[in-house]
Amino acid sequence: SKKQRIAVLAGDGIGKEVMPEGIRVLEAAAKRFDLPLEMQHFDWAHCDYFAQHGQMMPDDWKAQLQGFDAILFGAVGWPATVPDHVSLWGSLLKFRREFDQYINLRPVRLFDGVPCPLAGRKPGDIDYYVVRENTEGEYTALGGIMFEGTDREMVLQEAVFTRKGADRLLKFAFDLAQSRSKKHVTLATKSNGIAISMPWWDKCAEAMAKNYPDVVLDKQHIDILTARFVLQPGRFDVVAATNLFGDILSDLGPATTGTIGLAPSANLNPERNFPSLFEPVHGSAPDIYGQKIANPIAMVWSVALMLDFLGNGQGAWRQAHDAIVDAISQTILSGPRTPDLGGQAKTDDVGQAIAQLL
Amino acid sequence: SKKQRIAVLAGDGIGKEVMPEGIRVLEAAAKRFDLPLEMQHFDWAHCDYFAQHGQMMPDDWKAQLQGFDAILFGAVGWPATVPDHVSLWGSLLKFRREFDQYINLRPVRLFDGVPCPLAGRKPGDIDYYVVRENTEGEYTALGGIMFEGTDREMVLQEAVFTRKGADRLLKFAFDLAQSRSKKHVTLATKSNGIAISMPWWDKCAEAMAKNYPDVVLDKQHIDILTARFVLQPGRFDVVAATNLFGDILSDLGPATTGTIGLAPSANLNPERNFPSLFEPVHGSAPDIYGQKIANPIAMVWSVALMLDFLGNGQGAWRQAHDAIVDAISQTILSGPRTPDLGGQAKTDDVGQAIAQLL
Ligand SMILES: CC(C)[C@H](C(=O)O)[C@@H](O)C(=O)O
Ligand SMILES: CC(C)[C@H](C(=O)O)[C@@H](O)C(=O)O
Repeated sequence: SKKQRIAVLAGDGIGKEVMPEGIRVLEAAAKRFDLPLEMQHFDWAHCDYFAQHGQMMPDDWKAQLQGFDAILFGAVGWPATVPDHVSLWGSLLKFRREFDQYINLRPVRLFDGVPCPLAGRKPGDIDYYVVRENTEGEYTALGGIMFEGTDREMVLQEAVFTRKGADRLLKFAFDLAQSRSKKHVTLATKSNGIAISMPWWDKCAEAMAKNYPDVVLDKQHIDILTARFVLQPGRFDVVAATNLFGDILSDLGPATTGTIGLAPSANLNPERNFPSLFEPVHGSAPDIYGQKIANPIAMVWSVALMLDFLGNGQGAWRQAHDAIVDAISQTILSGPRTPDLGGQAKTDDVGQAIAQLL
Repeated sequence: SKKQRIAVLAGDGIGKEVMPEGIRVLEAAAKRFDLPLEMQHFDWAHCDYFAQHGQMMPDDWKAQLQGFDAILFGAVGWPATVPDHVSLWGSLLKFRREFDQYINLRPVRLFDGVPCPLAGRKPGDIDYYVVRENTEGEYTALGGIMFEGTDREMVLQEAVFTRKGADRLLKFAFDLAQSRSKKHVTLATKSNGIAISMPWWDKCAEAMAKNYPDVVLDKQHIDILTARFVLQPGRFDVVAATNLFGDILSDLGPATTGTIGLAPSANLNPERNFPSLFEPVHGSAPDIYGQKIANPIAMVWSVALMLDFLGNGQGAWRQAHDAIVDAISQTILSGPRTPDLGGQAKTDDVGQAIAQLL
């Protein structure tokens, strides 16, 4: 079978600490399951590169990455030297948009052995997916500041949604729900306050739901939805959300499972016209960088999602995915653990333990 | 002293069930503390009115309410008959905007006796204010749908922020923080994704912070901020937020304290050019309406906030506020309790218990 080509970009901060562990596990899995893949490292898309070149990436970044099947990404951002909106818009958000990775898929699951911040919840009680639109919506640089420096100073900020973007996101969410036992889609909305785009999203979701008579659609305003992530997490199965709402829910969800150090994400171009990108949900975490205490599990789990995607969820690739997730579960249960999980282990202790189990 | 005039609008759903309890407690407090006030009831700003008149309020609503010092509001919304954006934009959001109630102040506090959904947290661990901008921002009907029904269908949704709006919100937040012991302001931002308005908010907050050398400013992206409401609630003191972010945080925060049935809110025009509005954070809750099991405490606490505002935080008014909050605490501790707090009591059992304690 065709060799799968993976571009590796570690980025900034703890991205540089967790990536080696991701690769360690990737190599162990590739060996055990005999997966045909090759990796290439790129030393850009980080703030040191910006310091030297005045931009986050070389001009031909797209040509350099275009031929790859997947991008394995650490984290980007070093606000002490480059403002976040500059570093992010110059790298990660470019990938998502220009490689049309329109699905951001983020599993939320409570693992056995992780102290849950929600009282009385046990594994199985929290188990859902956030399906986030990843290329449009509230994240734009459209708009501007007017009358700056006067008492009339004002800012316009535009959000842009397309029917194509909403429909393909909703289709993915409904397909996913249909493949699961609960068959339930929650739409994150705010149609009572945001008066143009959100009522339109409601209608798009209602129209899509007609194609899935066996799937229940539940529209919930984002405010009460966040409350229910805390109070009634068992209610959720697949949560479909705009770029911003999905961003919020996919940090909050993992927080309710104990730590965002575990949460992986897949930025998918399901048609494979472009490489898809796999990264931990946590950012570059400048506050803990350098201590080598970052939890590498989100990175490792992202590797698993990547393998599953590369193999279309089948054969040895799927087995590799499952084996990695099992090894993660086992490591969480019996250690070693990084400080976010109450342990004293270093980043590489955890990576080694997981690799060993493979 | 001058008689304070209060306009009462119960609205829809459980708004109609909790309002009588709010008034019961208001009357008890007025009697005990000899507060000069009068109430007038208005039978509009609800969806039954809409059914009859095709609009939520009479044309001269503003003239009718203009002379009042405060509006006591229940909840509005009955989506089965009137879409939420129609009912809300036709009532509550009009009040907030046309009466320039630019501060939405929402205390978040864990009470003794409420089972906390966060493991291991006790009263004192969660105690902060969300200070929400209440008149502009993401809540607009500006924008539109283009190419409808074609494969180019798209939606533009505008957010509008003014410097005046940001500055007065920030000033209120910093003043509040300065009056508290922690002296800490968190700004909810998303300047790494929303590329025009949010970096501008960051700058406005940094500029305001210069006037308050004794107050710490901490900017946090909304995604990780929601995570920290769950993982590290003790970090927060005063959280300043745009309309949308404040909406989210002020449902999520109360959820972490056990129930949004307790959360009150004050929609303030601090200059008193217009009446301020006091309402529970929970909505009309069609799902439980009719059973008379709604928790009236959010309504009662809103009454307390109103009295405090009407008396400028002084004298008998402040005493009345404190007495009501004490009575709430005591009732939460020793019952009766509505089902959201694990009890079997009805709405009026709780209202009566609180009134009795006064
Ligand atoms: C009902 C709705 C429009 C309102 C809001 O979003 O402001 C409510 O959620 C609130 O928080 O007061
Ligand atoms: C870093 C930031 C731009 C990014 C986002 O908001 O999408 C991150 O929070 C995420 O969720 O991947």
